[in-house]
Amino acid sequence: MTLHLYAHRLSQPSRAAEILLRELDMPYSWHEVDFANGETREPWFADEVNALKTIPALVIEDESTGNPTATSIGESHAVMRYLCRVAPDRELASRWYPTEALQLAPVDTWMAWHHNNVRAYDMFHDIMNLHLTLPMLKYELQASALKPLQEGLCGSLATLDAQLAQHAAGEPTLCGGPHPTLADLTLACELYQIVAVGYRFTGFAHVAAWLDHMARRPHFSDVSQEIVEQGREIREQSGAYLDLDGAFS
Amino acid sequence: MTLHLYAHRLSQPSRAAEILLRELDMPYSWHEVDFANGETREPWFADEVNALKTIPALVIEDESTGNPTATSIGESHAVMRYLCRVAPDRELASRWYPTEALQLAPVDTWMAWHHNNVRAYDMFHDIMNLHLTLPMLKYELQASALKPLQEGLCGSLATLDAQLAQHAAGEPTLCGGPHPTLADLTLACELYQIVAVGYRFTGFAHVAAWLDHMARRPHFSDVSQEIVEQGREIREQSGAYLDLDGAFS
Repeated sequence: MTLHLYAHRLSQPSRAAEILLRELDMPYSWHEVDFANGETREPWFADEVNALKTIPALVIEDESTGNPTATSIGESHAVMRYLCRVAPDRELASRWYPTEALQLAPVDTWMAWHHNNVRAYDMFHDIMNLHLTLPMLKYELQASALKPLQEGLCGSLATLDAQLAQHAAGEPTLCGGPHPTLADLTLACELYQIVAVGYRFTGFAHVAAWLDHMARRPHFSDVSQEIVEQGREIREQSGAYLDLDGAFS
Repeated sequence: MTLHLYAHRLSQPSRAAEILLRELDMPYSWHEVDFANGETREPWFADEVNALKTIPALVIEDESTGNPTATSIGESHAVMRYLCRVAPDRELASRWYPTEALQLAPVDTWMAWHHNNVRAYDMFHDIMNLHLTLPMLKYELQASALKPLQEGLCGSLATLDAQLAQHAAGEPTLCGGPHPTLADLTLACELYQIVAVGYRFTGFAHVAAWLDHMARRPHFSDVSQEIVEQGREIREQSGAYLDLDGAFS
C-alpha cells in the first residue's frame, strides 16, 4: 500500500494530515498542490484526485490488488481518522484517536466544534490579502475584515481556555489524556498559523501554553517551517497594520 | 445505561441525533431545550449538560457504576458516532457508520464537508427573522441575507448532485452503498429544513430524489413533524417574500 498526500505546507489541514503521517511513522509520498493559484480546480486534480477540489487529499494505491483505480479521501478529518484506523502501530494510533467509545466521544466533539468555531474564523486569507495590497487598503482590511474574525475567535479561545484549564496538570491536552489527540492536532495547526504571523494569545494563557507544547513536537515543528517563514515575512513587512499584541490580549 | 437527549425538534442536528436513536432502536428520554429563547446559555444547561452551550447533547447515565457523574457528549456528529459505536444491534449500526476503514472514509469525508458547505449556508435563521419582521424589512432580508446564502448553497448542491448521479441506480445514497449512512442523515436533516418551508431543488434532480427518499423513512418523518408545521406557517404567511421556486432552479 502506497500513500500519496496531495497538500501544501501553507494549508493548515494539509499540515495536520502530514504531521499525523509522521507521528504515526507511516511512509508517504508528498505532492505539492499550488492551491493559492487555483491548482485544485484543474482537471488533473478535480477529476483524478479530489472532486471536492480541496487539499489535503490522500490517495491510496493498493499494489496487491493490481487494480489501477486508487482510492482517494478528501477532508483532513476523514484523512486523519482513516490513518489512525489503518496505522500499523495500533497502540500509537489509539493515542491519537482512541478506540474506546467514551474516550473517543470528546475527541469527535472537539473536531466537530472546530469547523464552526475556529476554522470559520480563519484569519489567514485576509492577512495575506492585507499583506499583498496597498497601504491604504491595509488599514481598511484590518478594520473591516480582520477585526470581526478576531472578535469571533476570542469567544472560541475563551471556550478552549476553560476546557484546557480543567486539565492544567501535566502535558496540556484538550481531552485531558496524557497524549494529544486528533482534536489537539487539528486545532493547533489552525491556531499556529496566526501565531506564526506574530499574534499572541496573552489573554488565553492555557491556550498559549498548550499551543507552545504542541508546536515543540519535532514533526509539528518540521512541517511548520514554511508557515513560520511566511509568517515572519508578513510580520516584518505588514506587522504594523495588524493588531498583533492587542487582538487576543 | 440510560440515554438522555437534550434537543429541540426545530434544530437540524437535534433531529439527526434523535432519528438515529430511533433507527438504531435505542431507547432514550427526551428533554426539550428552548434554544431559540436562550436556554442553552442558562447555568443548568451550560454547567451541567453541555459547556459548549449547544444542542443536541447526549447525557449517558451508567447505573451499573453507581457513579453519580454522568457523561455528556456535545456536537451531533460526535453523538451520532458514539451511538453507532455502542448500539446493541451491531449489524444495523454498521450500516449507518461502517466499520471497515475504506468504507468509512467517504462517510467521514461528507460529514466533514457538511460543516463548511451546507451548514455554513444555513438559511433558516434568516428565514425566521424575515418571517417575524415588518414587510419592508422582509424585502431587505431576502436581498441582503438570504440571496447570498442561496447562491453559496447552489454550489454545494451541484457538488452533491454530481456525487449522487454517480450512484443513480437503486436507493440513492451519498456514498453509493445500499443503506444511508450518517453522511446522508446529517445532510438530509439540514436540507429538509428549507424544503419544509417550500423551497424546491428543481435544478438538482438527484438531490431532490435522494432527499425525498430520506424523508419518507418513518422515523425521519415522525421526528420532522414540527419542522413541517413551522415550515407551512412560514410559507403561508411569508412565502411571497421568499424566492421559493427560483432559488434552486
